Amino acid sequence: MALNVVALAGGVGGSKLVSGLAEILPKGQLTVIANTGDDFEHLGLTICPDLDTLVYTLAGLANPQTGWGRVDETWDFLETLEGFGGPTWFQLGDRDLALHHERTRRLKEGQSLSEITMHVCQALGVSVHLLPMSDHPVRTIVDTYDGELAFQDYFVARRCEPHVKGFHFAGVETASPAPGVMEALSAADLVVLCPSNPWVSLDPILAVKGIRDAVVEKPVVGVSPIVGGKAIKGPAAKMYSELGIQPSALTVVVHYQHILKGVVIDTQDEHLAPDIQALDIQVRVTNTIMTNLQDRMRLAVEVLEFAMDEYTEITTLEE
Amino acid sequence: MALNVVALAGGVGGSKLVSGLAEILPKGQLTVIANTGDDFEHLGLTICPDLDTLVYTLAGLANPQTGWGRVDETWDFLETLEGFGGPTWFQLGDRDLALHHERTRRLKEGQSLSEITMHVCQALGVSVHLLPMSDHPVRTIVDTYDGELAFQDYFVARRCEPHVKGFHFAGVETASPAPGVMEALSAADLVVLCPSNPWVSLDPILAVKGIRDAVVEKPVVGVSPIVGGKAIKGPAAKMYSELGIQPSALTVVVHYQHILKGVVIDTQDEHLAPDIQALDIQVRVTNTIMTNLQDRMRLAVEVLEFAMDEYTEITTLEE
Repeated sequence: MALNVVALAGGVGGSKLVSGLAEILPKGQLTVIANTGDDFEHLGLTICPDLDTLVYTLAGLANPQTGWGRVDETWDFLETLEGFGGPTWFQLGDRDLALHHERTRRLKEGQSLSEITMHVCQALGVSVHLLPMSDHPVRTIVDTYDGELAFQDYFVARRCEPHVKGFHFAGVETASPAPGVMEALSAADLVVLCPSNPWVSLDPILAVKGIRDAVVEKPVVGVSPIVGGKAIKGPAAKMYSELGIQPSALTVVVHYQHILKGVVIDTQDEHLAPDIQALDIQVRVTNTIMTNLQDRMRLAVEVLEFAMDEYTEITTLEE
Repeated sequence: MALNVVALAGGVGGSKLVSGLAEILPKGQLTVIANTGDDFEHLGLTICPDLDTLVYTLAGLANPQTGWGRVDETWDFLETLEGFGGPTWFQLGDRDLALHHERTRRLKEGQSLSEITMHVCQALGVSVHLLPMSDHPVRTIVDTYDGELAFQDYFVARRCEPHVKGFHFAGVETASPAPGVMEALSAADLVVLCPSNPWVSLDPILAVKGIRDAVVEKPVVGVSPIVGGKAIKGPAAKMYSELGIQPSALTVVVHYQHILKGVVIDTQDEHLAPDIQALDIQVRVTNTIMTNLQDRMRLAVEVLEFAMDEYTEITTLEE
C-alpha cells in the first residue's frame, strides 16, 4: 500500500520537516499545502515567503544560516537600492528577486499561483507536489495594540515587537482551496501538521473553505513548534504569551485538539505527555530539533512510524 | 559672462559629448535634455535607457565596453530569471535593476520623472542639470515593413532588423516639456545637438510642444553622428538608407537645416564641407571620434570654441 501524506506547512520550521518527508517518501506520495497568508506586495512584486522557503528548501537551495532566502545569494540590487533611498526593510537577494519577478509577470499574464508554483518547482527540480493553500489572495492581519498590521509589516518591518491581540485572514471567506488541495486531502492516508506557527502559518491554511473539514476526516499527526516553552524560530511563543496563554507543547495541542489524533513532542516536554493523553491524543516523545538533513529524515521517519503504529488503517510504508 | 549651454542628447553617443561638456563647463552652466522616447515598461518597471545612460556616464559608472549599463555589474538576477523561463531579451544587471525599481516605486507614489531624475543624480553625485524632455510618457514607434514596433522591440528584441518606413512619437501631442526645459532653453547662449540618432533620439525631443520653436531662437551647433557614411553606434545609417536617403554628415545637416547654425563634422567628411556651407551652415572639421575622456573633452572644447568663433553674442568662456 502506498502511503499518501499531506503536510500542512508554513516557512522555515515546516520546510525542515517537509524536506525530511520528501527524502523518505516515494515520489508522488507527498503533497505539501503551503500557507500563503504571509504573501504580500512589495516593489510591485507578489512575494510568497512560505512558498518560497519551501521551494528553496526542497530544491536544496535554501540558505542554511537564515532558513529563508537562497544560499550563495548576492545583494547588489538591495545595496544599490539603499543608495537611492529605496525600501530595504525586506531583504531581497539578486537571485531571489528573479523568482518574485517571474511569478508576478505570470500572475499578470493570468496564470494562477498554483500553476506558477508548479512551473517554479519544475524549473528547480522539485518533484514534491507543492500547492499554495489557495490561488486567491488571503492576507494574515495581525491585530496588535499598535493597530492592525499586515503580516510582513508586523513580522519583518516591526520585528514582531507590537503586542498581539488576535489575527484574522483577510479574503479567506471568498478564497477556495487551490486546485489539487481537496483531491490530495481526499486521497490522504495521513495529514501532518508541520512544526509551524499555529496562529499565522497553519490557522490560515485551515481557515480556507473546506480544508479544516477535510483534514478532520483523516488521521492527523502534528509536531509541536514549541519546545521547552519556546519557539524554535519565530514569534509563536511570544504570541501565545501575549494572548494570555502559556506557550507549551500542551497549549499547541489544545489549539488543535479537535483535529489532532497524535502529536510528536520533544524530549524536553516529556512531562506534558500525560496532560496531552488526557485529551485523548496520542503522544510520541523524541528529539524534534532539526539541525541537519539527518535530523529531518529521522524525525520524518518517527512521524510516519508513529502514525502507522497508532492507526490500523495505515499499515505499511512502502518504498 | 557665463556661457549657458543646453545639450539635447540620446544615449551612448550623446552621453559621450555630454560628459566632455560637463568636464569643461563650470557647474550650473550645462543643462542636458534627454530623449525619453525610448522609455518602456518591462517586468512592471519603467525603464528609461537614454536617461540612465546619461546618468551612469555622468556619474562615472557607465560600462565602457557597452556604453549602456553599469560598470562592475553583476547578472545573478537575469541568470536566475532565465532559469525560470522569464524574458531576458532586455539586459538588466542587478545594480541597474535597483534604479528601475526605485524610479517605478516613486512614479507610483506620484513623483514626476524629472523629480526622480534629480533625486537619482543627487544620489549618484551628478551635478549636471539633467532633465527628461517631458514628464509625460512619449513613446517612439518605429514603422517597419513588419508593422509598427515599440522602440525597444525594434532596437533590442528585433536587433534593428526590420526595414524602417518612418517614425512617430506616441503621446507627444499631449506631452509638455518637463519643468525646467523651457527655462533652460530660454536662458541658453548655445544649444548643442549631440551626436545622437536624428530620427529616434533628437527628433522626439524636438517634437515636444514648444521645444523646437525655443531651440530655433538660439545659436545651435550640432555634431554629426554619421562619420564616413556610417553611424558610430546604432542604426542611424541603416535608417537613412532604408528611408531612401544616403547616410552622411550632409544628410544629417539637411535633416536639421532649419535649426542648425553650425555643425562639427569629422575629418573623414571634410569633402562635404562645401555642400554644407552652401546651405548657409558653418562647418568645423575635426576628429569627432570619442574613445576616451580626453577625446570627449577635446571635442567639447572644439564645439564651444566653434560656437564662440561664429556667434558674436557668445564671446567668452569663463571657467
